[in-house]
Amino acid sequence: MSTKKIQAALLGLGTVGGGAYKVLQSQKEEMENKLGAVVEIKRILVRNLEKAAKKVEDPSVLTDSWEQILQDPDIQIVIELMGGLEPAKTYILAALRAGKHVVTANKDLLAEHGKELMDTAKEMGCDLLFEAAVGGGIPIIRPLKQCLAGNKIREVMGIVNGTTNYILTKMTQEGMEFQEALAEATRLGYAESDPTADIQGLDAGRKMAILASIAFNSRVTFADVTTEGITKISAKDIQYARELGCVIKLLGVAKNTPEGIEVGVSPMLIPQSHPLAAVNDSYNAIFVVGDAVQDAMFFGRGAGEMPTASAVVGDVFDVVRNIMHNCCGRISCTCYKEIPIKRPEAVKNKYFLRMRVENRCGVLASVAQVFAGNRVSISQMIQTQVKADGQAELVFITDQVEAQYFQDSLTVLNSMSMVYKIPTVIRVY
Amino acid sequence: MSTKKIQAALLGLGTVGGGAYKVLQSQKEEMENKLGAVVEIKRILVRNLEKAAKKVEDPSVLTDSWEQILQDPDIQIVIELMGGLEPAKTYILAALRAGKHVVTANKDLLAEHGKELMDTAKEMGCDLLFEAAVGGGIPIIRPLKQCLAGNKIREVMGIVNGTTNYILTKMTQEGMEFQEALAEATRLGYAESDPTADIQGLDAGRKMAILASIAFNSRVTFADVTTEGITKISAKDIQYARELGCVIKLLGVAKNTPEGIEVGVSPMLIPQSHPLAAVNDSYNAIFVVGDAVQDAMFFGRGAGEMPTASAVVGDVFDVVRNIMHNCCGRISCTCYKEIPIKRPEAVKNKYFLRMRVENRCGVLASVAQVFAGNRVSISQMIQTQVKADGQAELVFITDQVEAQYFQDSLTVLNSMSMVYKIPTVIRVY
Repeated sequence: MSTKKIQAALLGLGTVGGGAYKVLQSQKEEMENKLGAVVEIKRILVRNLEKAAKKVEDPSVLTDSWEQILQDPDIQIVIELMGGLEPAKTYILAALRAGKHVVTANKDLLAEHGKELMDTAKEMGCDLLFEAAVGGGIPIIRPLKQCLAGNKIREVMGIVNGTTNYILTKMTQEGMEFQEALAEATRLGYAESDPTADIQGLDAGRKMAILASIAFNSRVTFADVTTEGITKISAKDIQYARELGCVIKLLGVAKNTPEGIEVGVSPMLIPQSHPLAAVNDSYNAIFVVGDAVQDAMFFGRGAGEMPTASAVVGDVFDVVRNIMHNCCGRISCTCYKEIPIKRPEAVKNKYFLRMRVENRCGVLASVAQVFAGNRVSISQMIQTQVKADGQAELVFITDQVEAQYFQDSLTVLNSMSMVYKIPTVIRVY
Repeated sequence: MSTKKIQAALLGLGTVGGGAYKVLQSQKEEMENKLGAVVEIKRILVRNLEKAAKKVEDPSVLTDSWEQILQDPDIQIVIELMGGLEPAKTYILAALRAGKHVVTANKDLLAEHGKELMDTAKEMGCDLLFEAAVGGGIPIIRPLKQCLAGNKIREVMGIVNGTTNYILTKMTQEGMEFQEALAEATRLGYAESDPTADIQGLDAGRKMAILASIAFNSRVTFADVTTEGITKISAKDIQYARELGCVIKLLGVAKNTPEGIEVGVSPMLIPQSHPLAAVNDSYNAIFVVGDAVQDAMFFGRGAGEMPTASAVVGDVFDVVRNIMHNCCGRISCTCYKEIPIKRPEAVKNKYFLRMRVENRCGVLASVAQVFAGNRVSISQMIQTQVKADGQAELVFITDQVEAQYFQDSLTVLNSMSMVYKIPTVIRVY
C-alpha cells in the first residue's frame, strides 16, 4: 500500500516560513508513523523567486502566484507565514472558502479579525489553527482550549514579547539604559529595524487579545487592550524596584472580573519571588490561573525561526490527523460568551511612582494630602536622594486604586509648583 | 432541539474522583456551548455506598457493582480514578473491549501495562486518555503528543513528585532534617501514611516511564527506570550544595542518546540559575528539550484534588468532542519505535560525594589516586571541617563519568582504612 500524501502550500519563506520548511523536511521519515500520512509541500508562495531558490531543495515548488495555489484542488492545507494584515487576510479567507485548512502564526490578523476568520472556518468545516501566534514555540493555545477546558479561567498573564524582555533583562543585570539595551538587541537580531511594535507593547497587546479571547471564551480584540511600552523605563527605576524586592517586566495581564474583562500590557513591578521574575533574556512565559488547576505556567522560546516552526508544524500535523479521521473543524471558535470589556479608568492597580520635588519642610505633607484627597492610599515610600540643586526624590508605592483616581492625583501633583517632575509611573503586579 | 447527552461512569470517589465530580458539576452550564453536548455522570462505582452518599447530589447514581456499569450500553465513557493495578486494569480492558472510551489518572498501571492498554484501545477504536497521570493539573501529555510533535525530543526531565519536592524545599529553606520535613509533609497531607512510593522515587519513576515513552516514541516501562529516593539526603548535603551554587531536587531525567534511552530518578544537584531550581513546595515542573522548540517548561500543581481533576475533565471533554465528531481513537499510541534502553552502568553523570577520612598527610593524595585510576576526574573539591576526633571531611564534584567506573572507585575507597565513611553520593545535573 502506498503512503497517503497530504499536499500543503507555504505562504512566505522568511524566518518562520524557512523554519517550518526545515522542520517539515526533518520530519519526513517520521510522518508516516506519526500520522499515517506524509505532508508534502507542493507550493511555496514567495515574492522573489530567485532569492528563494537558494533556500529550498527543489525550486520548482516556488511560485509568485497565489491563484496557482488557491486553484489547486490537491492542496488541502495552507500554511500562512507572511504576517501582516493584507494580503494575508484575503488569502486565508479565500483558502477557507475553497475548503482548504489553514495554519497561521499571524497574531496581528487574529487579534483584529479573529472572529471573521474563525466564523468562516466554522462555516466551511475547516481547521484554522494558530498555536504559533502566541508564545512562539510554547504550547499555550491547545492547552487552554483542551487541557484546561474544565476550568473557569480567572486570569492569564505573562511575558509574551521576547525583545522587550531581553532589553529589560540587560537593563536589570548590567545596569544599561534603555537606548543602549535596545541597540544591543538590534545588533543581535532580537529587535527589528523598526522596533515600535515591540517596545510600545503593541505586539504583546495583540497576543493578549488572543489569549484573553480563548481563556474567557469571549472575543477580545486588539482595540480592547490598553498598551504601554517600556521606552520610559530607566536604570534608576530598575534600581528602586530592586530595593523594593521587585523586578520590572513588560507584562500582559488579562482578568475576568465581575465587572467585565480587563486586559492590558504595561511595564510592571513584580516580586522577585514570582516565577515570572526569573524569566529572562528573550524567553517568554505565560501564567494561567483557573478555578480547578490553580496556577500553571508555560515557559519557553517566544520567537525565533525553529521554535515558532515547532508550533506551526504541530498544528499542521493536527490538521493531517483531522483529515485522516475526517473530523476537521473539530475544535473551532470557543468564544461563545459576550463579556463586556471593563472601562480602563475603572481598572484597579497598585502604582510605583517617582517624583522630584522641592527639598523643603511641608512638601511631603502636601503631596500626601493630594493622594489622600483622591482616594490613593500609600503603601511604601522611599526618600533617598537629595540633589545638589535642592531637589529631593520621592518614591511611592500605592495600594490598589482605580486608574481614574490615580490619574486625578497625578493631574493635581503635576500642577503644583513644589513638584518639579514625575519621571516615572509604573504599575505594580 | 434537545441537548445531546453523553453518559459517563466514574470509578472511585476518593480525592481525585471527588474532584472530578465537583469540576463536572461546576461545568454543567458551560458544556453545551463548549462541546455541543452535556456529560452526565450516570454511575459512580464506590466500595462504601453509605460513606459516598454524603459526597454526591443524588445518591442513586452510586453503585458497588462494576457489572452494572460495564453492561450499561448508554455509558460511553469510563473515568477510572481508583488507582492501583487491580482491579483497575481488568475494568479498563473490559470497558475498552465493550467499546467504551476511558479516561484515567492511573500512572502505576500505565507505566507497567501501557502497551496492552493502548493496543486494546487502538484495536477497538476507542480513546484512552491520561493527561492526569503525569504532573497532575499541568498540561504535558497533550503538548508532547500534539504541540511538540514536530520535534525530535532529546530530553525530558523535571520535578514530577510534589511530596518529595515539599520535603526538600523545607530542608533547604528551613534547615530541617529529612525525618522532620517528612513528618510535617505527613501532617499537612502532602505525604501519604505510607510514603514509600514517594520518598523512594517510585512514583516519580512511573511518571518518567510514561513521559519517556511519549517523548521518544518508544515504549519505556517502570522496570526500565533506575530509581533512588531522598531518604539519605541530609541538611548538611544541602548546605554543601548551596556553597557550590546548587540546590538538591529529586529529578526525573530521560534522554534519548545514540546508545539508547537512559531514564532514571534520583536526587540531584542542580544550579541555582536553572529554572527548575526555583520550583518549590509541592509544585511540579517538566522541562522538555527538542530540536525545534529548544527549551520548554511546564509548571504547576502536580497533585491534589482540583488540579488533577482539571486534567481529568480536560480529557473527558476531548473524548466528548471525539464522540461528537465521530473520530475516537484519533490519537492513539505514539510508540512506533523500539529504541533500546541504555545499561544503567553506562550512563554518564557528574557526582557529588562527601566522605570522612583520617586527618593526616597523604590521605588526599591516596583518594585522588583511586579516582584517577578509575577514570574519575575531579572538577571541584571542598575540605572544610576537621573534627575533634581527628577526622576530616572531603567533598568532591567529579566530571562526567560512566556509572560503572565511579562505582569501581567507590568500592576501592570503601575498602581503604583511611576512609571512615562515605555518607553521601548524589548525582549532579
